[in-house]
Amino acid sequence: MTGTTDIKPTDDRELVLTRLINAPREKVYRAWTEADLLKQWFAPLPWTTPDAELDVRPGGSNRIVMRSPEGQDFPNFGVYLEVVPNEKLVVTDAFTEAWKPSEKPFMTVILTFEDEGGKTRYTARVRHWTTADREAHEKMGFHQGWGQCADQLATLTAKL
Amino acid sequence: MTGTTDIKPTDDRELVLTRLINAPREKVYRAWTEADLLKQWFAPLPWTTPDAELDVRPGGSNRIVMRSPEGQDFPNFGVYLEVVPNEKLVVTDAFTEAWKPSEKPFMTVILTFEDEGGKTRYTARVRHWTTADREAHEKMGFHQGWGQCADQLATLTAKL
Repeated sequence: MTGTTDIKPTDDRELVLTRLINAPREKVYRAWTEADLLKQWFAPLPWTTPDAELDVRPGGSNRIVMRSPEGQDFPNFGVYLEVVPNEKLVVTDAFTEAWKPSEKPFMTVILTFEDEGGKTRYTARVRHWTTADREAHEKMGFHQGWGQCADQLATLTAKL
Repeated sequence: MTGTTDIKPTDDRELVLTRLINAPREKVYRAWTEADLLKQWFAPLPWTTPDAELDVRPGGSNRIVMRSPEGQDFPNFGVYLEVVPNEKLVVTDAFTEAWKPSEKPFMTVILTFEDEGGKTRYTARVRHWTTADREAHEKMGFHQGWGQCADQLATLTAKL
């Protein structure tokens, strides 16, 4: 798969994905932080993302609705922990808003956007609280799902 | 107990404690954020706090060592989620550093320091991810332990 390189997880509770995306990092960052853009790539087709509200600041929350091919909606809630424009985003589902604990802290996502000669080294480190959750996420199809979404992200940002 | 008022938890996963402390909020905030001061009140005597490292900023971590009367040390790790000088501090044990998930996300502590005619309305809201953890914390002696520490905090800040 073009633009994929090997990258190792930090430990056995982390899953990681990286892509070299043929767009400047400002555009890749926009696709993660502007709701109208995020809705175009966030769910792996034929799933869709009919609704997204993103309050992108430390302590800001998001609500992203994913819709199954059968039409069932799945809302996801998270809180941004760290925001460095065009460089880094950290978001967790351990809180649904600042600072209300969620029903189940499952993952914290660390996204980095690095310039590589005008392209973007896009890396998602997905950290879990337990190895069991990391394994479950992997079996749910993390690599295929996040990989497909990264491809959709790359396709969108190339057109921006 | 002087300065105590009734205050209700937000929900059944929260424990809450409040005190009216006879010191301006700047001093109460200092006692929470300066290691040399925190070591003087943080553990309920005869427990002590021999070591504390506090990197007080969003994403900064802390390491606070509590020592039992028998001499056994218990290090605690946390990360600050929100810092508003002299007004608010939010710290969680869900991470040991930014952004490394801890072994067990147990609580998020929301501290507020409000001016009441030159005194400080000090409130600690301690939120857990489960009702079971809230119950366990209560049975471990939350109200007595945090209450005793609040008294020690009040005694110290009155002398600053």
